[in-house]
Amino acid sequence: MSGRLAVVVGASGGLGRAFVARLAAEPGWSAVIGVGRARPDDWPEDPRTPFLTLDLLDESALADLARQLRERGTLGLLLIATGLLHDTDLTPEKSMRAVSAEAMQRLFEVNAVIPSLVAKHLAPLLPKDERSVIAALSARVGSIGDNRLGGWHAYRASKAALNMMIRCQALELQRERPLAVCVVLHPGTVATGLSAPFARSPKTLFTPDDAAQRLLKVLSRLQPADSGGFFAHDGQPIPW
Amino acid sequence: MSGRLAVVVGASGGLGRAFVARLAAEPGWSAVIGVGRARPDDWPEDPRTPFLTLDLLDESALADLARQLRERGTLGLLLIATGLLHDTDLTPEKSMRAVSAEAMQRLFEVNAVIPSLVAKHLAPLLPKDERSVIAALSARVGSIGDNRLGGWHAYRASKAALNMMIRCQALELQRERPLAVCVVLHPGTVATGLSAPFARSPKTLFTPDDAAQRLLKVLSRLQPADSGGFFAHDGQPIPW
Ligand SMILES: NC(=O)c1ccc[n+]([C@@H]2O[C@H](COP(=O)([O-])OP(=O)(O)OC[C@H]3O[C@@H](n4cnc5c(N)ncnc54)[C@H](OP(=O)(O)O)[C@@H]3O)[C@@H](O)[C@H]2O)c1
Ligand SMILES: NC(=O)c1ccc[n+]([C@@H]2O[C@H](COP(=O)([O-])OP(=O)(O)OC[C@H]3O[C@@H](n4cnc5c(N)ncnc54)[C@H](OP(=O)(O)O)[C@@H]3O)[C@@H](O)[C@H]2O)c1
Repeated sequence: MSGRLAVVVGASGGLGRAFVARLAAEPGWSAVIGVGRARPDDWPEDPRTPFLTLDLLDESALADLARQLRERGTLGLLLIATGLLHDTDLTPEKSMRAVSAEAMQRLFEVNAVIPSLVAKHLAPLLPKDERSVIAALSARVGSIGDNRLGGWHAYRASKAALNMMIRCQALELQRERPLAVCVVLHPGTVATGLSAPFARSPKTLFTPDDAAQRLLKVLSRLQPADSGGFFAHDGQPIPW
Repeated sequence: MSGRLAVVVGASGGLGRAFVARLAAEPGWSAVIGVGRARPDDWPEDPRTPFLTLDLLDESALADLARQLRERGTLGLLLIATGLLHDTDLTPEKSMRAVSAEAMQRLFEVNAVIPSLVAKHLAPLLPKDERSVIAALSARVGSIGDNRLGGWHAYRASKAALNMMIRCQALELQRERPLAVCVVLHPGTVATGLSAPFARSPKTLFTPDDAAQRLLKVLSRLQPADSGGFFAHDGQPIPW
């Protein structure tokens, strides 16, 4: 009832799992709750790190998740670590000739719509009188100003859309919950399924645990005045 | 065959029609071609300003359009003036509580997917050895950095996504057609059906003709080095 919860959405992913593991080792959380569309078979059987399964595009399921979480306490930290770059039907575009409506819409749905709906349903659980954090994983390639190479059109566009949605939500939270910090993050290039086909030099890759640690450190230092911003794993702001 | 064409996509709209009228009065275009999903009943019967009707989400129709245009000449100017903010089923969000997957996806489809597909199919008609222009109508509220108010979540996100797509296409054009200028524009608040329910003070509204004139002047001054940028009706760059 009076617990302080950390919630990781997309907890089955490379970064999501690493966040859950790091947070479970921190004092101060009554539970670290993993959320995703499917519970991994090897998810630990630990009542402090339950895994809740739901369709993240289903608003009634999200409303139900919010009710369940509310019974457990307030939301100190919400990490949205879902995301999609490629799968068997989806290859990042090398040229505008490869752009398609289908790929744009799929990436937009996963990378922009899901995080927006999650934040919509879970932001009301943030405390009104204490510091709290919402962070969604974006990507540096989602920076329009930083884009000097082109390519990966639909992924980049979906992350730019995500950045705008989270900024809108941060501006709104500033009025309702002035101590909340709501940001988008770039994790660096991290050794997960998402980056595997593209990461050129394994030496510049972070492990998921390393990236999770760096990002949690960045979040611990951000102030309410930083809310609505876009930050890299080294704490530096990234241009829009 | 050797004509120099101006093409206005979304020519049935408030701004689209104004662009066609202005361009038809300029010397130097062998034709000013309106494109849209439905020909307005009062479209002028003038062989210099034909209206071509097609479904802008249908890639085979777009490929067919490209073939028809190629028979008429090269593409000196492509203006993408389609866009959606509201309709009977769609009201811009005042709060994150109003965000929905359906509205996000519809606005993304019209405001980001359609312009991207149009640019994909028509960019190959730009000349290789002469100055040419592609401009898509974005909106200042699509600037993430400039967003200090929040609200209009899905429209803003769809325009941020558009800005990224056009920037990707501009970067690619820089390599293939170094004299091309490919940008996104903010027209100001213009008296059209799109702005009608929201424009507070009619005195700060531009007429469509006024906005079209201002934007064409901005485009006439842009250099290839400006390609990939975001410009307002007064020629000033807008932050991403
Ligand atoms: N890895 C990198 O180098 C890198 C770099 C920049 C940004 N990022 C961002 O970091 C975030 C996490 O990436 P990651 O590297 O950890 O990738 P990952 O291992 O592929 O994890 C992706 C996560 O998203 C979930 N997901 C994907 N599609 C979904 C859908 N339709 N419905 C519900 N959940 C869905 C996956 O769930 P399932 O397990 O059920 O598929 C998984 O939990 C992403 O937003 C990514 O864009 C990563
Ligand atoms: N007016 C402003 O104050 C203002 C301010 C900032 C930015 N803008 C931008 O300027 C652009 C033009 O806006 P406007 O004011 O001229 O609006 P408008 O009068 O409503 O015109 C919109 C145009 O988009 C077309 N369109 C909409 N949905 C479509 C779809 N699904 N398929 C094909 N075509 C579709 C319309 O075609 P139909 O005629 O067939 O419906 C029409 O040609 C938009 O991108 C808008 O976001 C306008």
